[in-house]
Amino acid sequence: MSNRKHNFSAGPCTLPLSVLEEAQKEFVDYQGAGMSLIEMSHRGKHFDAVANEAMVLAKEVFGAPDDFSVLFLQGGALLQFSMVPMNLLGANDKAAYVNSGTWAKGAITDAREYGNVYLAWDGESDNFTRMPLSNELQLEENTRYLHITSNETIGGIRIHEWPDVNVPLVGDMSSDYMSRPIPWRKFDLVYGGVQKNLGPAGMAVVFVRKSILEHTNRNIGRYLRYDIQEEKGSMFNTPPVFTIYMLGKVLKWMKAEGGLQAMEHNAIKKSGLLYDAIDGSGSFYNCPVEVASRSHMNVVFRLPSEELEQKFIAEATQSDLLNLKGHRSVGGCRASIYNALPYESVAALVDFMQTFQKTNA
Amino acid sequence: MSNRKHNFSAGPCTLPLSVLEEAQKEFVDYQGAGMSLIEMSHRGKHFDAVANEAMVLAKEVFGAPDDFSVLFLQGGALLQFSMVPMNLLGANDKAAYVNSGTWAKGAITDAREYGNVYLAWDGESDNFTRMPLSNELQLEENTRYLHITSNETIGGIRIHEWPDVNVPLVGDMSSDYMSRPIPWRKFDLVYGGVQKNLGPAGMAVVFVRKSILEHTNRNIGRYLRYDIQEEKGSMFNTPPVFTIYMLGKVLKWMKAEGGLQAMEHNAIKKSGLLYDAIDGSGSFYNCPVEVASRSHMNVVFRLPSEELEQKFIAEATQSDLLNLKGHRSVGGCRASIYNALPYESVAALVDFMQTFQKTNA
Repeated sequence: MSNRKHNFSAGPCTLPLSVLEEAQKEFVDYQGAGMSLIEMSHRGKHFDAVANEAMVLAKEVFGAPDDFSVLFLQGGALLQFSMVPMNLLGANDKAAYVNSGTWAKGAITDAREYGNVYLAWDGESDNFTRMPLSNELQLEENTRYLHITSNETIGGIRIHEWPDVNVPLVGDMSSDYMSRPIPWRKFDLVYGGVQKNLGPAGMAVVFVRKSILEHTNRNIGRYLRYDIQEEKGSMFNTPPVFTIYMLGKVLKWMKAEGGLQAMEHNAIKKSGLLYDAIDGSGSFYNCPVEVASRSHMNVVFRLPSEELEQKFIAEATQSDLLNLKGHRSVGGCRASIYNALPYESVAALVDFMQTFQKTNA
Repeated sequence: MSNRKHNFSAGPCTLPLSVLEEAQKEFVDYQGAGMSLIEMSHRGKHFDAVANEAMVLAKEVFGAPDDFSVLFLQGGALLQFSMVPMNLLGANDKAAYVNSGTWAKGAITDAREYGNVYLAWDGESDNFTRMPLSNELQLEENTRYLHITSNETIGGIRIHEWPDVNVPLVGDMSSDYMSRPIPWRKFDLVYGGVQKNLGPAGMAVVFVRKSILEHTNRNIGRYLRYDIQEEKGSMFNTPPVFTIYMLGKVLKWMKAEGGLQAMEHNAIKKSGLLYDAIDGSGSFYNCPVEVASRSHMNVVFRLPSEELEQKFIAEATQSDLLNLKGHRSVGGCRASIYNALPYESVAALVDFMQTFQKTNA
């Protein structure tokens, strides 16, 4: 497609063009079945194959060990903010949370409805410009889990040192999902919405350690129970067929591109190019985030004034560099450069930034 | 498409071919934007227009009065089984349920986790072959709502007389959603999954009476709160973009076809053709459902033996009449004939039934 634009949206966002074209081709008549995949029973052989492949690939691409099950659940990461404490927190347990920004705060707010929650670390006083080191985390007795947000989409920070603590981790990985390896042995549960690195919006992928499912709470509605969803292979009710289908295609693309290693390599390369341009601009562009905590997915930066930021975003848009506005809660600029965003898009942005600086410095 | 098959799936199921073809055409590059709709920010102007149109059309096509809000929520009808009592049931309330079959039972099971629940009527002793009349419903004091399932997908029965009671109704309408007018004044809340009459799987549409949102429970996770979802226009978090987009297209198709009246007219015509064929077969085909309660969406029928049923389904499949197997929990045959299934498909099925009878009677 010749007129494809550079799309720096924070999510939903750029998907691999080859995936889109393939899905388009088979959209009306799936594999000669005489109907679309989205018209088929989710218990039939076609979708069964699609769902199985997506589940196997999700574990394979992310390197999840055999003692984890993968669940496909509706409601995005936001519903997981409730489901995690609903399922995991017992009456005598506490849950520890790292308050690293907007998304962590959301997880904390919802968890407080379902149990005893405290902050193991609070980044508010640093204005959420960095992630904590392990030795800064304060854990109390009877802590069931420590909840972390691996990447804050709005603040543009990421966990660079996985917590070294003696309680299981639960991780919201929505905005850097499957962009780097993770230390599985530390985790009881990993979750994230798919609408950034993995596919179209409408689902969360949850990896849960099988052994904890024996001890999760039972006195909750069945859709919300991890044990039931696992037992039913995420088909307790009609699953989001199209989203699972597209997830499978994106995972296949990731595997063909070289898997998690390649994704991480590209993320370092793309974000490095952009941070170098920012740092090399003599403070015309400025990233407020502590260097070690800088996100490889969401690169936030400011210009000398809000007027220049507006001009920058407007002129970038005219140059087909889209969705560079920072989140409304923090302002500034943000380039989200997820797995499927081509290197060429980042290079085009850096070119534009340099030209813009020359004209406006 | 010349090789399109007759698809009697209970859901996901047949969608209008024109809708599929239109979506295919604009799948990779949406309206010349240089990206797919599923790659766009859900806060951007393109999706904003799509979501608004779908919301307006949902109310318009279904004839919902102004004092109802429409919500697009993930998790299907099954998550509503929990959300309804979570939000609506106070500590001193009771909830009455009509036990009309498999889906009602599910709603009852989940509601029991969240409050005081009793059965206003139980169809189990009739083997779920009919719906109750109003004078059969037994309501207790302090009943917050009476929950009904307007159509049981598996049993093939539908409510033919809307309950005339002095408590608000809550209705699960998943399997006959927007196929007939409903008495809105009786309802506080109407919900249903979209994957039968309205679009691809992955969402429930919920109509909620605005005035009750002042009194819903607040001590629950935010995704699960009707008041928050309403205040945020169902965009508290990233919505299922593609499902909403397709829902809008299906609603537009419904409107162009003549709206709810036409849908009801067609449903009566299609189901009538099929029930006439069954009733006129001299008991070769047999529908176990009481005549007044017969579903216009899911037509269940038996043959003289299970062997003949298997043969019937196998030979129908070879004649491109697909997915006629009854639900595994009840056996037999079932033809689901939702809004988008053409009359010609039902006519082809009836032809096949007559031929099959001649050969096998």
